[in-house]
Amino acid sequence: MLPVDLTAALSALLGPRLSVSRADRDQHGASESHFAPTPPDAVAWPETTEEVAAIVRLCAAHACPVIAFGAGTSLEGHTSAVRGGLTLDMGRMNAVIEVNDQDMDARVQPGITREALNFHLRDSGLFFPVDPGANATLGGMAATRASGTTAVRYGTMRDNVLGLSVVLADGRVIRTGSRARKSSAGYDMTGLFVGSEGTLGIITELTLKLRGQPQAISSAVCAFDSISGAVDAVIETIQMGVPMARIEFVDAATALAVNAYSGADFPPLPHLLLEFHGTEAGVVEQAEQVAAIVADHGGQDFRWATKTEDRNRLWDMRHKAYWAILASRAGCRAIVTDVCVPISKLAQAVSETQVDIAASPISGPILGHVGDGNFHAILLIDPARTEEAAAAAELAHRMAQRALALGGTVTGEHGVGMGKLPYMQAEHGDAWALMGAIKRAIDPDDLFNPGKVVPAT
Amino acid sequence: MLPVDLTAALSALLGPRLSVSRADRDQHGASESHFAPTPPDAVAWPETTEEVAAIVRLCAAHACPVIAFGAGTSLEGHTSAVRGGLTLDMGRMNAVIEVNDQDMDARVQPGITREALNFHLRDSGLFFPVDPGANATLGGMAATRASGTTAVRYGTMRDNVLGLSVVLADGRVIRTGSRARKSSAGYDMTGLFVGSEGTLGIITELTLKLRGQPQAISSAVCAFDSISGAVDAVIETIQMGVPMARIEFVDAATALAVNAYSGADFPPLPHLLLEFHGTEAGVVEQAEQVAAIVADHGGQDFRWATKTEDRNRLWDMRHKAYWAILASRAGCRAIVTDVCVPISKLAQAVSETQVDIAASPISGPILGHVGDGNFHAILLIDPARTEEAAAAAELAHRMAQRALALGGTVTGEHGVGMGKLPYMQAEHGDAWALMGAIKRAIDPDDLFNPGKVVPAT
Repeated sequence: MLPVDLTAALSALLGPRLSVSRADRDQHGASESHFAPTPPDAVAWPETTEEVAAIVRLCAAHACPVIAFGAGTSLEGHTSAVRGGLTLDMGRMNAVIEVNDQDMDARVQPGITREALNFHLRDSGLFFPVDPGANATLGGMAATRASGTTAVRYGTMRDNVLGLSVVLADGRVIRTGSRARKSSAGYDMTGLFVGSEGTLGIITELTLKLRGQPQAISSAVCAFDSISGAVDAVIETIQMGVPMARIEFVDAATALAVNAYSGADFPPLPHLLLEFHGTEAGVVEQAEQVAAIVADHGGQDFRWATKTEDRNRLWDMRHKAYWAILASRAGCRAIVTDVCVPISKLAQAVSETQVDIAASPISGPILGHVGDGNFHAILLIDPARTEEAAAAAELAHRMAQRALALGGTVTGEHGVGMGKLPYMQAEHGDAWALMGAIKRAIDPDDLFNPGKVVPAT
Repeated sequence: MLPVDLTAALSALLGPRLSVSRADRDQHGASESHFAPTPPDAVAWPETTEEVAAIVRLCAAHACPVIAFGAGTSLEGHTSAVRGGLTLDMGRMNAVIEVNDQDMDARVQPGITREALNFHLRDSGLFFPVDPGANATLGGMAATRASGTTAVRYGTMRDNVLGLSVVLADGRVIRTGSRARKSSAGYDMTGLFVGSEGTLGIITELTLKLRGQPQAISSAVCAFDSISGAVDAVIETIQMGVPMARIEFVDAATALAVNAYSGADFPPLPHLLLEFHGTEAGVVEQAEQVAAIVADHGGQDFRWATKTEDRNRLWDMRHKAYWAILASRAGCRAIVTDVCVPISKLAQAVSETQVDIAASPISGPILGHVGDGNFHAILLIDPARTEEAAAAAELAHRMAQRALALGGTVTGEHGVGMGKLPYMQAEHGDAWALMGAIKRAIDPDDLFNPGKVVPAT
């Protein structure tokens, strides 16, 4: 429970935009992850940067934790209020503040979702390219350094945030970065806050890079006899400099789940799903280059989709793969893993994971952003069977260890949250302690999202 | 002078690889910048990470500043030993440790130059794309977040360093990042050290992204009646998504200097110099697209160079533009400025700067990386005339203020060093104090390159 004084002061500031109701607290202590809900003591819906600063000052005076919340699409328990406190639901701060066509940038509030932003931009000739699948908020995507299917072409949130406004623990508001495309003026503060998972400050504005909507888009799909054939085709495609917009991998189990769910007719084999962005002539040339590479690596049945409806159908199936996999076992729950390895190790990492899953009591289709070496297993468990949850936890644990042994990272895009905290020492060594030193320097009283990212003090 | 004990301990460790000679000290206190040489008390040439750690521990015990030195190509006095101390010349740590063809990455020591790295890679089909013009070391390029002509396509050092080994102030060696192409595992420590100008630690290894050598390269040059025509052509080119490898701007004064120096025949007008990378068909299509855009914006005399010798001649002239400008006034010295603005403000920023220079007693041709909004004035002064140095300083000062007023940054790629320190408060506001807090958290005794980047304590 919040201190009475603090509740009174927040109520005076926010009126009905402060809630201590059980429903609001429960909703904001949960997410799409499998972690047990851990509700905050109260939820606030700020509307301005100044209001966030005022809330933070009040909470700081009462040593009350402050946790930022976007769309609740986190998969690693980022918003769990493990020490109680106040959750800031940023959903009312969802405006597009400005779009600069010539500079191809936009300034937005953190609560806008990526779909809403792209809807706003639909007639501008521009779009925001980072696509994690979920309709996350831009603030949440920045906080977790999100990426997804298009990162192979357009980069992650690290590459697409030009600047931020951030409320610090003492209520000061800083601006990081600028609208210049590059700068060498001191430490990269934008880069420090992107991926900090709400532990260093509250993001209240973002300046984002936009891209020109491609003149032409086409897609393709093809099957492979082996995972290594698919991965080798991807490696050669990237080495050739083909500017792929998407290169997605789905394994045979995922293909079968998609067949059942979406009425598709994929053969029971590993597949690559590809998207090309460019000029009309450019996407034709790209597709021809890739078709030749695919054929060299045992790819079969290269199907090329230039019609919008065929393309949309393909990516709709890909985006629904998670739901298709969930539907493949009635009543199940999914534990979604996330690791990323150097691409030369990807076939090994995926194959070893498949063998590991096959030897376990559960199923776990695999899919991923193969151009980046990033993949996920969707581990399906019956919530009533504790041995299945234990098996999933062990599989996820071995995936993380495997990624580290192969020179990779325990999370390519989902973030640390609760799930990857146990691996931070192993991944970073002494650099993890340095993260803790930075946290203490910027948020000395551990006000922001305590219990996350850095070592416990 | 170093403490006697410290000199003895360093000598025991390094033998002849420690020098206190006047010549070595003077060489390492100077650079290509106009700042007065400020030599260190001694110079060391370490050969291993472990040796750097041992040196740092010894220096820390004696509160002796430690300054990293690459090729000495800094333009802002980064390596000036303003509080004396020991300069580490990283030139002997210049090995390529490994190249991973499939993953398109390389692990190198910091003292290798970019030309040496690309020579090493020449038969691999890969190259390292960041090209600041000078043959800088990779360690120095990372420390200053360097970029240059190719950043519009391939990004800056921020985008091309995957990981680092760094010696901290207590002698610990940390590794940041991994060989995975992306990660959401905590704070971006690689990004924090890139651009920190040697103030947080000593970089002893870098893992770099490499790119595939393009199948085809072509170049073009064209003249414009006005700067705004040239800039508008660039804006439209980028909006169209043409993947330009280089888009360089030179003003009329630069064109004339190049004519005199290199025997070229550019009309006395602003020019764009362009480079296209892609497939054979792709570069033809790109050049045709750009030629049409250029014509729409008053571009004339679009000359397209597909032959290697013509292309090399063009970029040789561009790379020698600095020397051509220097040669345009006998006995002069150059003060090279560096600002970066949103591209929509570039024509205004360049035009106002030209007017400002024309009203001054000195000349200052302008050139820059127009795709990024980044430009330089090469301010030519007679070292014997103090009023010219004063005029140059005032012009540079107004350029920095103009960049900030237009939403830009006081340095796009040269870094802070001594020259841009006075603008850090104006550019960053309270975020500058936060940089200071990070410095104190990581280097509490101000051991590394003191007097740079962060506020004085």
